[in-house]
Amino acid sequence: VPDVFFIKYFSIFLQVMNLNFSEDTITAVATPMGTGAIAIVRISGVDSIAIADEIFVGKKKLSECETHTIHYGKIYDSTGDIIDDVLVSIFISPNSFTGENCVEISSHGNPLITKKIIEVLLEKGVRNATPGEFTKRAFLNGKIDLAQAEAVAEVINSRTEVSLKGARNQLDGMLSKKVADFRTDLINTSSLIELELDFAEEEIEFVGYEKLQELILGVITEIDELLKSYNFGRVIRDGVNVALVGKPNVGKSSLLNYILKESRSIVSAIPGTTRDIIREEVSIDGILFKLFDTAGIRESEDLIEIEGVLRSREAIRDADFVILLSDVNDLFSEELYEELLEVTIREKIILVGNKIDLKKERDFSADCLISAKTGEGIEKLFELLKSKAIGNNVYTERSAIVTNSRHYQSLERTKSHLLTALESARSKMSGEFIAFDLRNAENSLSEIIGEVSSDDILNNIFASFCIGK
Amino acid sequence: VPDVFFIKYFSIFLQVMNLNFSEDTITAVATPMGTGAIAIVRISGVDSIAIADEIFVGKKKLSECETHTIHYGKIYDSTGDIIDDVLVSIFISPNSFTGENCVEISSHGNPLITKKIIEVLLEKGVRNATPGEFTKRAFLNGKIDLAQAEAVAEVINSRTEVSLKGARNQLDGMLSKKVADFRTDLINTSSLIELELDFAEEEIEFVGYEKLQELILGVITEIDELLKSYNFGRVIRDGVNVALVGKPNVGKSSLLNYILKESRSIVSAIPGTTRDIIREEVSIDGILFKLFDTAGIRESEDLIEIEGVLRSREAIRDADFVILLSDVNDLFSEELYEELLEVTIREKIILVGNKIDLKKERDFSADCLISAKTGEGIEKLFELLKSKAIGNNVYTERSAIVTNSRHYQSLERTKSHLLTALESARSKMSGEFIAFDLRNAENSLSEIIGEVSSDDILNNIFASFCIGK
Repeated sequence: VPDVFFIKYFSIFLQVMNLNFSEDTITAVATPMGTGAIAIVRISGVDSIAIADEIFVGKKKLSECETHTIHYGKIYDSTGDIIDDVLVSIFISPNSFTGENCVEISSHGNPLITKKIIEVLLEKGVRNATPGEFTKRAFLNGKIDLAQAEAVAEVINSRTEVSLKGARNQLDGMLSKKVADFRTDLINTSSLIELELDFAEEEIEFVGYEKLQELILGVITEIDELLKSYNFGRVIRDGVNVALVGKPNVGKSSLLNYILKESRSIVSAIPGTTRDIIREEVSIDGILFKLFDTAGIRESEDLIEIEGVLRSREAIRDADFVILLSDVNDLFSEELYEELLEVTIREKIILVGNKIDLKKERDFSADCLISAKTGEGIEKLFELLKSKAIGNNVYTERSAIVTNSRHYQSLERTKSHLLTALESARSKMSGEFIAFDLRNAENSLSEIIGEVSSDDILNNIFASFCIGK
Repeated sequence: VPDVFFIKYFSIFLQVMNLNFSEDTITAVATPMGTGAIAIVRISGVDSIAIADEIFVGKKKLSECETHTIHYGKIYDSTGDIIDDVLVSIFISPNSFTGENCVEISSHGNPLITKKIIEVLLEKGVRNATPGEFTKRAFLNGKIDLAQAEAVAEVINSRTEVSLKGARNQLDGMLSKKVADFRTDLINTSSLIELELDFAEEEIEFVGYEKLQELILGVITEIDELLKSYNFGRVIRDGVNVALVGKPNVGKSSLLNYILKESRSIVSAIPGTTRDIIREEVSIDGILFKLFDTAGIRESEDLIEIEGVLRSREAIRDADFVILLSDVNDLFSEELYEELLEVTIREKIILVGNKIDLKKERDFSADCLISAKTGEGIEKLFELLKSKAIGNNVYTERSAIVTNSRHYQSLERTKSHLLTALESARSKMSGEFIAFDLRNAENSLSEIIGEVSSDDILNNIFASFCIGK
């Protein structure tokens, strides 16, 4: 008990601290790095409008303007030089993203200009925002819950349409609503126990135990359903890692090149972190596949090669699937297959035969036969990968899905407490015991939407945000 | 005469065409590429607010909202799916950047989202904006003149504080005002001629010729002043190209590395276009120096080397200055110096002795002695480069300056017409002749601010803009 209550108490304490803390005014560039037509410097905090007035000259004082209005004028530096002519947007608390007074300065999209605007704001006592601090303030001020705050980063970072849809649903509160439903169920369950406790002294046998089990089991089933979505959720969020293995000249580069050139769904070509691993990303039906071309995995005595082999083995170990590419005009390399099994498991390996364009009789045994030269069979290869990655899951409707390991773990803990509660109900233990487990279950659920959270958890979450959000 | 008038007539005709043309509604992403907290999709055109209403659902219809207001809501695609929740800013004609109705959709900064928003806008009949088309419309609708329109691109692309200040001054109309002053002077001059023409039939000798010469000479002197600013203007706008030449092992890479590592004013490291030329950019007191490390310039028989030599020679030929780096512990390479003189001129070559840290007696003859290892002398080297590049020019005040070759050429033409007019006035030619030259001079001046311009010129100017501006 004390553990959970301590966290809850501590969290409330921290929130109070944070609210005090957030009385300062923060700023950051909110638009992507680089040059463009427009860049935006965002300011949030109780003094943001008053401070903007100190560096901005327009037709009238910003502090006299209404919320959600835009004003043309010039930003000056401390020496009285014009930094830029800008449009300033005003948002008066609580009607802003953060819930605080907010100002957005829209300048010409030159990083030198935004740098100068930030500099002059810092001179006026504003401080640089930490990553995700605007969203953190939105959470702390009750504008969004924690699952929605996390979705903000995912909406920004989604690389495929499907992952974006998942993130949007979470931002729209799909997951939060599901969590709220579970909590309502748990409260209904608890009320049955209170009934039991009321009658406890009368030593009448509590008839509610069966009903209790039924209710708890119901919630567990629904949580299981949500937990099951995690594998799919993780795939749509992070994509599928596929390592490409094969002897020299079996056509690994040709396969990568074909995918790069022919596929119109390329997400990006990311230069390899080392010379040994080339990574390409491709989106197929909205699922992101990350392809790693690996160097040899055979033990070597050459020092440089050893490093490459280590990296290759790491990539293969981390991969969701491994494509073992062979030349159908050559013998299947049993040796390489055996070596692969030292690093990964049989189920992850997909045997692919390449160069079918050069062969008349196709008697090579493989999961998939392709020609990286003509493209034959490559679509089938991706169908195979897709079906292995997500099975029959489709993601069209607006449904709650777990894409985040923090949420998954909270749900796992919730389920574990509920299983204990179920066991207690089955053995007709005293209501206090069951109530205690249900309370723990509820607390674990509440972590998802941030009603129970520690400062560490919050810092962890927002540290992965970009600055300016 | 017909030439100039034709251009003017043609330009008015094109402007009328463009105004018809610009009745369509255009869109583009206005923020830099990449992910960030916020991205902005800009729409301009008479129907922009009505079209935004078709894809946006907020508290009320955008077409019922006042100008310069911001509205929270959601953007939907054609299947009714939410694309994103956004803030929409409304600008009602003529109170917008382009002078037309404008809408800015501020979404989460994910390129997938802006792509989808653009897609749904295209479905509604909006079209993709061409580069600079928003600014072009601002010019065509009389919101800014052509020199200011050009300054918009320069404000965005300025890489150093000094070039930004120059571009800002031009955007603020410094150059335009100067041009207007010259035109007033020319009009005053023309009025003198009209006086002469009025009295022409009376065959009284015109006493105004001397006054006329004085006035024309006055304008020529001022134009000369402005023309002189071009060398400095070009340097602050485009930076100074410096080629680095030296025998192997004299420390070219060490010098580049030192500058890269020690200088806190690095602008960027741009990967060389070939293996033979490495380019680094560094900003010193707001002046951009572009350093090219060249491969050998000696004629070679190796085919691959020949290509490198050609590129090096090209870089040296284009360079504003060439640093010939020598090892002070070695003999000065007369041979290399002679070879260099085949490609560039003596005045551009700066002799620099390196590795003074390794030598006790410094008796090496050079313009500058440095140690790329300890950094000794490098600051002096840059002082030398700076003084060679811009002399004693400083750029602190708000003054008109010519940074653009188009403006320079127009001023050159203006001057040439004025010199003809001056000559005519000196030989007391008829007023009609002088008036003709003055009109030509005025037309050339007007090209700068775009009162006389052809479609080709406009297309040329705006093609170099980024999309979304």
